[in-house]
Amino acid sequence: MSVEAATSDPLSRHRETLDAALEAISTRRYFSAYPESPSPRVYGENAASEGQAAFERWLHDDFPLDTPGARGSVASERSPYGPDLAVRYPHLPADEAALDQLFSAMRAGMPAWRDAGPDVRAGVCLEVLARLHARIFELGYAVMHTSGQAFVMAFQAGGAHALDRALESIAYSYAEMTRHAPAAYWEKPAGKGEPLRMDKTYTVVPRGVGLVIGCNTFPTWNSWPGLFASLVTGNAVLVKPHPSAVLPLAITVQVARAVLAEAGFEPDLVCLAAEDPDDRLAATLAVRPEVRVIDYTGSSAFGEWLERNAAQAVPYTEKAGVNCVVLDSTDDFAGMCRNLAFSLSLYTGQMCTAPQNVFVPRGGIETDQGHKSVEEVGQGVAAAVDKLLGDDARAVEVLGAIVNDGVLSRLEAAADNGNVVLASRTITHPVWPDARVRTPLIVSLDGAEESMYANEWFGPVSFLVATDSTEQSLELFRRTASEQGALTAIVYSTDDKVLEAAEEAAVTAGVALSVNLTGGVFVNQSAAFSDFHGTGANPASNATLTDGAFVAGRFRVVQSRRPTPAASSTA
Amino acid sequence: MSVEAATSDPLSRHRETLDAALEAISTRRYFSAYPESPSPRVYGENAASEGQAAFERWLHDDFPLDTPGARGSVASERSPYGPDLAVRYPHLPADEAALDQLFSAMRAGMPAWRDAGPDVRAGVCLEVLARLHARIFELGYAVMHTSGQAFVMAFQAGGAHALDRALESIAYSYAEMTRHAPAAYWEKPAGKGEPLRMDKTYTVVPRGVGLVIGCNTFPTWNSWPGLFASLVTGNAVLVKPHPSAVLPLAITVQVARAVLAEAGFEPDLVCLAAEDPDDRLAATLAVRPEVRVIDYTGSSAFGEWLERNAAQAVPYTEKAGVNCVVLDSTDDFAGMCRNLAFSLSLYTGQMCTAPQNVFVPRGGIETDQGHKSVEEVGQGVAAAVDKLLGDDARAVEVLGAIVNDGVLSRLEAAADNGNVVLASRTITHPVWPDARVRTPLIVSLDGAEESMYANEWFGPVSFLVATDSTEQSLELFRRTASEQGALTAIVYSTDDKVLEAAEEAAVTAGVALSVNLTGGVFVNQSAAFSDFHGTGANPASNATLTDGAFVAGRFRVVQSRRPTPAASSTA
Repeated sequence: MSVEAATSDPLSRHRETLDAALEAISTRRYFSAYPESPSPRVYGENAASEGQAAFERWLHDDFPLDTPGARGSVASERSPYGPDLAVRYPHLPADEAALDQLFSAMRAGMPAWRDAGPDVRAGVCLEVLARLHARIFELGYAVMHTSGQAFVMAFQAGGAHALDRALESIAYSYAEMTRHAPAAYWEKPAGKGEPLRMDKTYTVVPRGVGLVIGCNTFPTWNSWPGLFASLVTGNAVLVKPHPSAVLPLAITVQVARAVLAEAGFEPDLVCLAAEDPDDRLAATLAVRPEVRVIDYTGSSAFGEWLERNAAQAVPYTEKAGVNCVVLDSTDDFAGMCRNLAFSLSLYTGQMCTAPQNVFVPRGGIETDQGHKSVEEVGQGVAAAVDKLLGDDARAVEVLGAIVNDGVLSRLEAAADNGNVVLASRTITHPVWPDARVRTPLIVSLDGAEESMYANEWFGPVSFLVATDSTEQSLELFRRTASEQGALTAIVYSTDDKVLEAAEEAAVTAGVALSVNLTGGVFVNQSAAFSDFHGTGANPASNATLTDGAFVAGRFRVVQSRRPTPAASSTA
Repeated sequence: MSVEAATSDPLSRHRETLDAALEAISTRRYFSAYPESPSPRVYGENAASEGQAAFERWLHDDFPLDTPGARGSVASERSPYGPDLAVRYPHLPADEAALDQLFSAMRAGMPAWRDAGPDVRAGVCLEVLARLHARIFELGYAVMHTSGQAFVMAFQAGGAHALDRALESIAYSYAEMTRHAPAAYWEKPAGKGEPLRMDKTYTVVPRGVGLVIGCNTFPTWNSWPGLFASLVTGNAVLVKPHPSAVLPLAITVQVARAVLAEAGFEPDLVCLAAEDPDDRLAATLAVRPEVRVIDYTGSSAFGEWLERNAAQAVPYTEKAGVNCVVLDSTDDFAGMCRNLAFSLSLYTGQMCTAPQNVFVPRGGIETDQGHKSVEEVGQGVAAAVDKLLGDDARAVEVLGAIVNDGVLSRLEAAADNGNVVLASRTITHPVWPDARVRTPLIVSLDGAEESMYANEWFGPVSFLVATDSTEQSLELFRRTASEQGALTAIVYSTDDKVLEAAEEAAVTAGVALSVNLTGGVFVNQSAAFSDFHGTGANPASNATLTDGAFVAGRFRVVQSRRPTPAASSTA
């Protein structure tokens, strides 16, 4: 039980970072441990070029990684910017023999990892983050060329912000594992007799193997919180990336294995499960008895399947949703239009937090520029989008590229099913001529056309929906969010009563609400340590990234007690 | 959102109790808020007789309680001591119209209960505990005459200790709800520009309706932690008692409704679902969409059904298990036999924590009384049981009564399937001639007869199992616990290496271990605030009573954020 870690205290180097994170998760004030600016002044003159070279070195080659049970290799990534990445990963087949071998290897290292205790595990995980941070440009390019995000966004959301989210989840996990004393002396009075005296120990034990099922659009940001929460609490972690976004997680696994090995632990505690897209590997892995925790981001259909079928595991799922905007009134019409235009345009709306339905009362809204009809509101937002994306070279840095064909199909279908307020246009990327770049589409609908707007149209599709009143807008928001799920909502109003009603609707529907954003904060962005992502309170997710509920189920406490020896009973 | 509670600060009266509990759940040192001695010196001269009279007043009458949707009444309780209780409760039928009415009524009060916030809710719940404590003798008699526990045990386990467990769960829930600031000012540096400034609020919102499915043997102790954890986190709670143990929970619901109403909340936030035993009401309730949290104690079959089928809810389940004793050596043979004898006899072994399988090496064990063969070990324990239960009047205060016919059937079947070391005998209760009182049966088996001892024989059945070695004993313990589940285990050894191996086995199998108990602490007893009950790490339970994981999933946090007004941006 008291295995010595083969390393000196790995937490000492990172104790300040952890302490700052522990404070931030409680105060929820601004905190970040990883600079989000890719500027040479922050990261050095050569960081960007070296990172790009490091990324390019992996292309058209075997990625150096061992996965027990793997046979042959798979290469399934093509950049949304055009090039075939052709990185070859060990192919994990979905057959029992391969998986038996894999899980056996993964579990072999668990007792030593468990016995190392929370401090050592936290130190190792924070060292993994430090090494990932040292490769942030390489990761940025890997995220860019798998998700289609523009580079700066990939660097930030896929690098710095993802590291902050990972640190946040390690902090929650550490707090949860250390909230109880690791040992206690228990003395119960017994009337006139001698007290009962016991020495007790409490050991944090893992659940088993954590399975992380990654997504195409945010391979690191959405995967790292669960990955590190499972790992730091003593579990082994199997990372099953989206076949189109393997590289960012392969780098992650590579770093984790190296740090584990250096610290004297079994590297197979973290493995990559690269699949052929036809394998449907996730469904096979998810019901393996060894898998006791699942983190998933993706379609509602598979998320709900996991919730119903992976009963041996605790599933944390983020699924589809329909995010709403409620426009009632504003004292900054231009700021509102600019803010919404950016949220609709960023990464071409391919964010689970991007707004889709913009509810406006049929009679229009009051603004600092006077009354605006529904049509004028649509024109205002459309003009702001046009201005934001007017210059192609600048536009592609906001839009990035279209991640897959499904997005293009929805874009076409939506344009055919309503009155187009703003048409989507194709932009030729100045650097990547084969990149699929599109601008957002805005379609106007009537509130009665719920069959159109009450479903998620993932991608650059939004609907300007005319309603009877703000009251009805709020009711439609509440209902679609409750029934279809939603991760975010935003309301614009100068009326405190409307804002109060919006907060009530948001609390009832379990949706994170933003109010009157006109500046540099956007509804589709959430800040680690301060904003929760998802609530678990509507169908869009069954958990929040990251809070106590996200980490507490990843481990158990097993106690041992024995009578206190007489000599030490006065302790 | 900012509804004023119709009461002044209900937490102020109970703040000290809560603070002491909050400290205890962290230190895990001894703490109790409710005296466990039913002595007149503690509770007053008339407390016992008044409590008994209060209990008897309910018999053969309608229990005064409203359950929306109920039609007619049911009376399903017969005391294991003989008498028909004939308390009539409102009958909740398992039909859709009745349940629609019920859940609609229960949900009506939730917004105000949610808006009251953690402090008010904790104050109300602690007031409920104070009122239950004032009725502890009445509760003791109600638990005695439904579970069959002897009175003092019913008073303690069903009263004082159950109150401590409820307080413990309220403390964990309060800590979890208040670990984040309720509001935060967020200021993000923006290079040379003005920082981004946001005001944020974080609202604790309930999941929905919590369903508590009670058991026959510990109607309060096993139900209260989940009941109060769900209630204090803002949920409504529907209490579905075991048809044979309704009264203790009916009293609980009565008290909760009264305190809620006095504090200005909707009493239907807590309702009783009394059923006809043929209704199979729990299965219908468990899959209702309104039910989002389930607490269950009972059979493995239904527990696993819940885990697989109530996918809309978070189920916390405690199921069957096989608890083991590993005898290797001892320096206090007499104390060991006494201690085991008490654990086998207490409440006739009808505890989920009672030991069943006693593994002894075929070659015997070393003790302070010299070498003891397997047979001599069996004789030692049997003699200790005989001594403990030699006097009928004293014996019934340890044994209580047999809770149901299933226990008697197993007792007979076990005696037919092995070599009887200690026969079970029938005792005539000096006060209750119709009570079914039995002493424990001990049967000897060989380690190879795993098909007998690897299943739970709930009740006063234990097996003395001869093994090849202590090493094999530990392996059998580890395997049966991992595969069949176990809540407790105990090892006796004077060898540190054996104790270390036992701790490794216990940690691997996820079982709470006791070591070398020879005095007044018993393997089947757990102390609130210090001992966890269950681990969630083997099939006997999927959760611990009570820790962070037991409470964190019962609520969600929903945030709202808006730009900080310019005037206050320097806050």
